[in-house]
Amino acid sequence: MYIMPHPSKKFMECLQYAAHKHRDQRRKDPQESPYVNHVINVSTILAVEAGIEDENVLMAALLHDVVEDTDASFADVEELFGGDICSLVREVTDDKTLEKQQRKRLQIANAAKTSSRAKLIKLADKLDNLRDLQINTPRGWTEERRVQYFVWAKQVVDQLRATNSILEEELDKIFKEQGLL
Amino acid sequence: MYIMPHPSKKFMECLQYAAHKHRDQRRKDPQESPYVNHVINVSTILAVEAGIEDENVLMAALLHDVVEDTDASFADVEELFGGDICSLVREVTDDKTLEKQQRKRLQIANAAKTSSRAKLIKLADKLDNLRDLQINTPRGWTEERRVQYFVWAKQVVDQLRATNSILEEELDKIFKEQGLL
Repeated sequence: MYIMPHPSKKFMECLQYAAHKHRDQRRKDPQESPYVNHVINVSTILAVEAGIEDENVLMAALLHDVVEDTDASFADVEELFGGDICSLVREVTDDKTLEKQQRKRLQIANAAKTSSRAKLIKLADKLDNLRDLQINTPRGWTEERRVQYFVWAKQVVDQLRATNSILEEELDKIFKEQGLL
Repeated sequence: MYIMPHPSKKFMECLQYAAHKHRDQRRKDPQESPYVNHVINVSTILAVEAGIEDENVLMAALLHDVVEDTDASFADVEELFGGDICSLVREVTDDKTLEKQQRKRLQIANAAKTSSRAKLIKLADKLDNLRDLQINTPRGWTEERRVQYFVWAKQVVDQLRATNSILEEELDKIFKEQGLL
């Protein structure tokens, strides 16, 4: 029996929750795209490009910035979407009580320790950010800051290797174009 | 064998396409929410509240305003997502070459003739718009215009009856609160 795929009710609730929580937030591109477009891109990269069918990973991708960047808490995410999704979101959430440079160092230091499902989300997140950065210089960024972001992102990605060859090849294409590989 | 549901690749592409095409558009609420939040709400109402598992209907809901409000054409939608989804989008798209009052009259006149799958999308679209309108008066609207929208929406919904009892009950709750039923 062939069952037509369709998103679960939980997936749709998760999408709606992410769109609602990020509704006042915009990306740093010159067009100020809605922030939710980024989390949709990350989930789509995982489903379409990497072929991931683990719906909890796709939902955690939609929620990957919701605790870091909105008033949502881990307790909210756990209550609404369960422990597995909450654990994944926790693994990809920076501690905003730390200052920015330390958070960036910790992303490199902690990347290798995360679960392989959380690594998928981190790879897709970096891929979407770098694709944006290839086209746009974010509002308020110098060219130097843009270059440094590619350098830093490669240091993180190098700690996430042997997770998904499709995503890593897409990232390596970008690192080659930037002369980093 | 129980297969865990997950969105198809096509569903994710459709979601990403809608978010991308509507990226510069905002809702008329005071917070200027991203427009994509509305099409996500319509698809979520169908999946979660009405229990619709027909993925083409959920995708057409995501795309229901993409031809009406962005530079996307029916040919684009058909090429990217196929004839069935394109037909559904066509059924729920107003002809923007007509003036606004005529478009509103035609919505009432044409509602009963649409397919039952397109009627589902129309009901969910009205439900999300009316829920918004219960909370917010859109920017630039008078109270009179707000009241008239409820009156007009009920005239459209009355031509869409006997399609889905859950959605119709939710709409009737609102019409009762507005003293229209």
